[in-house]
Amino acid sequence: MKHSPTRIIINTSALQGNYKFLTSKVGQTCQTAAVVKANGYGLGVDVVVPALEQAGAKFFYVAHFAEALTVRQLTSAPIAVLGGLPRGAADDYKNNRIVPVLNTAEEITNCPADLPAIWHIDTGMNRLGLSVNEVSTFASQAKSLPILMMTHFTSSDDAQSSHAAEQVRKFNDCIAGLPKPFQLIPQSICNSSGIFRNENWHRAQTRPGVALYGANPTPETKNPMSPVVTMETRILQIRTARAGETVGYNQTETLEKDTLLATVGLGYADGFLRSGSSRAKLYWHGQPCKIMGRVSMDLIVVDINNLKNCPTPKQGDHLEVLGNHQSVDQLAKDLGTISYEVITSLSQRAERLAR
Amino acid sequence: MKHSPTRIIINTSALQGNYKFLTSKVGQTCQTAAVVKANGYGLGVDVVVPALEQAGAKFFYVAHFAEALTVRQLTSAPIAVLGGLPRGAADDYKNNRIVPVLNTAEEITNCPADLPAIWHIDTGMNRLGLSVNEVSTFASQAKSLPILMMTHFTSSDDAQSSHAAEQVRKFNDCIAGLPKPFQLIPQSICNSSGIFRNENWHRAQTRPGVALYGANPTPETKNPMSPVVTMETRILQIRTARAGETVGYNQTETLEKDTLLATVGLGYADGFLRSGSSRAKLYWHGQPCKIMGRVSMDLIVVDINNLKNCPTPKQGDHLEVLGNHQSVDQLAKDLGTISYEVITSLSQRAERLAR
Repeated sequence: MKHSPTRIIINTSALQGNYKFLTSKVGQTCQTAAVVKANGYGLGVDVVVPALEQAGAKFFYVAHFAEALTVRQLTSAPIAVLGGLPRGAADDYKNNRIVPVLNTAEEITNCPADLPAIWHIDTGMNRLGLSVNEVSTFASQAKSLPILMMTHFTSSDDAQSSHAAEQVRKFNDCIAGLPKPFQLIPQSICNSSGIFRNENWHRAQTRPGVALYGANPTPETKNPMSPVVTMETRILQIRTARAGETVGYNQTETLEKDTLLATVGLGYADGFLRSGSSRAKLYWHGQPCKIMGRVSMDLIVVDINNLKNCPTPKQGDHLEVLGNHQSVDQLAKDLGTISYEVITSLSQRAERLAR
Repeated sequence: MKHSPTRIIINTSALQGNYKFLTSKVGQTCQTAAVVKANGYGLGVDVVVPALEQAGAKFFYVAHFAEALTVRQLTSAPIAVLGGLPRGAADDYKNNRIVPVLNTAEEITNCPADLPAIWHIDTGMNRLGLSVNEVSTFASQAKSLPILMMTHFTSSDDAQSSHAAEQVRKFNDCIAGLPKPFQLIPQSICNSSGIFRNENWHRAQTRPGVALYGANPTPETKNPMSPVVTMETRILQIRTARAGETVGYNQTETLEKDTLLATVGLGYADGFLRSGSSRAKLYWHGQPCKIMGRVSMDLIVVDINNLKNCPTPKQGDHLEVLGNHQSVDQLAKDLGTISYEVITSLSQRAERLAR
């Protein structure tokens, strides 16, 4: 027994349901690849990759080659590395059947003709990717064809933004200007949100990531995805602190009245961001318990004074961190960030269970 | 070869030097325990524990029992668990020679007389620990004596605060009111900062944590500790983006002029907090390169337009994240947090080397 105070439970059926739902949004000829970078967005590739493969996923994306090596132990499906082809890595990619996403002129030049690769066109992110000019230049002198032409959205989560449509236009124009064979190469444009924005953008392959793991790809509407992560943490101590006393490091919070407090075995070393200090909540029987004072490395103190119509929590009980009453997106708001950072930050310290 | 874009290098000599320096601050009869919770504050217990033991550490603290089990594989020294004694765990503690820090009445009641334990008195944190009243009650009926009496400072990092002195007074008064045998039990009060504040507080054992790993325990003065963590990340692409274009997700940053940008293989999934968006810096030849737009999961874009008297960085070069030009404490400020969260957040994705 490890007696860990915090448990993360991955609902693999919900994950598989999300994959199938995303597949149902696209046509028969469109493949739904699965993005499993950052250790499956923090949920654990050991759980995520086999579950997604069982649900039908036949193509995986990671960020770095080292991640691809880990995923290669879990599946024989194609794995593509979004982070490109580092110098001197071509043989390692080839030997492990890893597909580089080529983002720079140097990478295209260094990529052997017999290493299947993807070309990434930057259409407005200014982050990674070939410029339209570079694509034109290299297409006219290519030793071999890429297996896929891709681009990546900056703002597809924002239903009000026209930027995604502009990016698709730029992508289409770029491809249209290339030699004929390039116009027959399969294309991939959509991330999670993009899938929901325009079916003309689905093309040959979509690349959902965060939606698989339960975050809302369409923030302007009810979340169409099912929650995948449940997280709960044990109460290590309950106390009544007196009016005028302070709570936690540097005495940032002073009690206005005598207050029942619960201390749980969760902290920023578990990936619960310190930005939730005096702001975020944990839940008990569906009722919010506000964090009092600073989130510390291993401990958080919450106010359990105002709970109504439910049993009073006791030492040994568990509070909900993520679950039926607090979604990944809701917690992200209180932490001042986005769902992606909430789940990728989950550390290895908590006990992990898959159901 | 893993070809990881980000490297974390742990300087074990600096770590050992820090341990010895902290030992030099206390008298011969005072033991310097080492706090290695949260996987050695994110640096890796596999590296940290043997190095500290070699430097003379003979007592270790962790937060949870599962961490103690991991550290038990690395040392035969005593290991204490700050997070207490979970229900039904006494035999597991005994069998693995783990010392619980008892924080609650229930834990004292459940702790067998033959399991060596520490009593933690809460003197003003309102987080974990026995109240003065509870200590008095249990001391008068104790089946066996604790091996150590401890308390924990809330604000010892703040040289202007009198709270630490108040806590020590409360601790002293509590012990003075206990039965005679309890007054002979060794005491432990000081965390990293406390060691530097008052030598009367050193008692039988100090418990430094963050200072071992190079953070400044006395923020009002120059850091007396040596940096332990170096971190660097590879440039995956360099581009000139045009005036009026935007950078990164949701187009949060618009360029006022044509700008040379570098994209590195580092993101919040590596533990570089997203709160550094448009604010934090990476370094090249000692010069700051400001982050442009949002920190994304695996990538960060920085401005390398204004570098002077140094070679222009190229794809494949590495920028400094932590090192000679950016300390853990400095980066923490730009991320809106404290050094502790910066280092405990470092994820397992980066390549790790010990020197």
